[in-house]
Amino acid sequence: MLDRIERIRRRKPVIREERITLAHGAGGKATHTLIEAVFLEAFRNPLLAPLDDGALLRAGDQQLAFTTDSYVVSPLFFPGGDIGDLAVNGTVNDLAMCGARPVHLSAGFILEEGFAVADLRRITDSMAAAAEAAEVAIVTGDTKVVQRGKADGCYITTSGVGLVEQPVTLSAARARPGDAVIVSGPIGEHGAAIMLARDDFGIEAPIRSDTAPLHGIVRELLAALPSHVRALRDATRGGVATVLNEVARSSEVAVVLQEEQIPVRPEVTGVCELLGLDPLYVACEGRFVTVVDGEHAGQALDTLRSHPLGEGAAIVGTVAAAPAGLVLLRTAFGGTRVVDVLVGDPLPRIC
Amino acid sequence: MLDRIERIRRRKPVIREERITLAHGAGGKATHTLIEAVFLEAFRNPLLAPLDDGALLRAGDQQLAFTTDSYVVSPLFFPGGDIGDLAVNGTVNDLAMCGARPVHLSAGFILEEGFAVADLRRITDSMAAAAEAAEVAIVTGDTKVVQRGKADGCYITTSGVGLVEQPVTLSAARARPGDAVIVSGPIGEHGAAIMLARDDFGIEAPIRSDTAPLHGIVRELLAALPSHVRALRDATRGGVATVLNEVARSSEVAVVLQEEQIPVRPEVTGVCELLGLDPLYVACEGRFVTVVDGEHAGQALDTLRSHPLGEGAAIVGTVAAAPAGLVLLRTAFGGTRVVDVLVGDPLPRIC
Repeated sequence: MLDRIERIRRRKPVIREERITLAHGAGGKATHTLIEAVFLEAFRNPLLAPLDDGALLRAGDQQLAFTTDSYVVSPLFFPGGDIGDLAVNGTVNDLAMCGARPVHLSAGFILEEGFAVADLRRITDSMAAAAEAAEVAIVTGDTKVVQRGKADGCYITTSGVGLVEQPVTLSAARARPGDAVIVSGPIGEHGAAIMLARDDFGIEAPIRSDTAPLHGIVRELLAALPSHVRALRDATRGGVATVLNEVARSSEVAVVLQEEQIPVRPEVTGVCELLGLDPLYVACEGRFVTVVDGEHAGQALDTLRSHPLGEGAAIVGTVAAAPAGLVLLRTAFGGTRVVDVLVGDPLPRIC
Repeated sequence: MLDRIERIRRRKPVIREERITLAHGAGGKATHTLIEAVFLEAFRNPLLAPLDDGALLRAGDQQLAFTTDSYVVSPLFFPGGDIGDLAVNGTVNDLAMCGARPVHLSAGFILEEGFAVADLRRITDSMAAAAEAAEVAIVTGDTKVVQRGKADGCYITTSGVGLVEQPVTLSAARARPGDAVIVSGPIGEHGAAIMLARDDFGIEAPIRSDTAPLHGIVRELLAALPSHVRALRDATRGGVATVLNEVARSSEVAVVLQEEQIPVRPEVTGVCELLGLDPLYVACEGRFVTVVDGEHAGQALDTLRSHPLGEGAAIVGTVAAAPAGLVLLRTAFGGTRVVDVLVGDPLPRIC
């Protein structure tokens, strides 16, 4: 096992493929390699380097967070949401994960010729409702149209500016042995809802996307534990497994999960079993992972559970010193396995 | 003629089409209708309402500008530039047009499965060089991949944050009778270069895109005339004609252009004649239009001409009280015609 661990830890960011594959957009190993080998290599600068959900900037006496995400989810409409509220909530959540109060959003639309104006209105209405719920304003935008067959209806890129009103130091690199790992609710619902909405599998189950704005619950967590929250990450592409691998690597620690403590709704477990997926890798759009000082884990959990978006929060694991860089899962049967970063893309265009 | 003028002035923003057409992305009349009838309607807020190149925000003691643009130019590589430097310069220029110093950029990539990694590197290298030239940092980003046939190689959405360091009041609504209208150099080169690069017409001509960062020349103009510049607009989609129609409508003035004073390189004139296009509607990516107090027009022109990106600047017209809302062109032969906003899209995917 040690050889394998060393091999995993020593991976260099080299792109072996000559062409982009769906895996490069999956948020897992290939995405990371692409980012490190191409984007970081070209754009290298101290603000980009941490590769957190957004960049922290200074403007006069004010610290800002700045973030962007493109949305290419398919289908555009799904149980629990659509590309519009997903695009607003996603950017709101990236700002929240930086400890910022989301304030201003931009929206860039790439529309395919022939897209129904009624569908566009449905999407913009959904964005407006999500913006109102998240207390942000969409203040600037852009629209481009491409010919039929050069897009898939509608793609949206939202960027956001948030204010860091209370200085916090959050980073995937701050986890320490003894810390607790908490998820804010049952995992995998967004990804499972999208899969079912595609209707490729003929499975029906009452699963809705968990898309939601997380700035409120994060604000309460940071207010309750201003100096004991180490890291916050929303568990989107690549799911909880991918977030925790980032924590393990950046902090050079081990994350040890207890399988039976991971909250997954039975419908999601059922769909994942049918499709051969592990819920740990399935995207959420309204759940986050936080690493907190172990002594304050109970207080963190109580705070989360007192918020409507955190009712199903659970402590799912702990941080250990070794094996550094790895995520381990203690199974219900007493075994242990490595939860590696996502390879390939089992669920393209989940967001 | 007055009936026609009244008809033009009274247009209401109603979308008659049930489906999106390429004209909705052309920057002309259909784009404006789409923005007003769908986006403004849904997102209505005081910062979005002015529909300038970016939104002006306050953060602590600092005024910020925030802007976004999606780039879908085809082909991705063309004489004088590529989608990468276009995306950086375009957002830098939108910030400059707000009177802001561009500082931070984000970049969201939508890649098509099968896109060559070597082309992506070429694009990111070009973005890095453009960012360095414009003294901005690309601090955050995102990558999505869609299946073959669901994009066209690579789309990029850049957003930007700039600092307004010297308070200025710039708006397309501030033009007054007696003001002068200046363009910063020969027009239509970007659009003409893209058309030729598509190679649909079998025309060859030595035309390169004018893509360039305009923050430096704008800074010099604003430093020389801190209180006499009314409006700044980069003349991208829809060209100079579209910008001036915005000025005429927003300010409720007439803009009167002198055809023989409009700088157009002979190669561009030639290509436009062959293709039946009017250079006034052809996109630039490194030229801007400014409206300045008529008494300071000479000083503004001297300032622009002393900068390498403004060597070909020219006073092209004046602002008059009537007919309010219209752009008129006095032709070389002594005639006058209305320069209406762009209808349809003669040049899809120019940026």
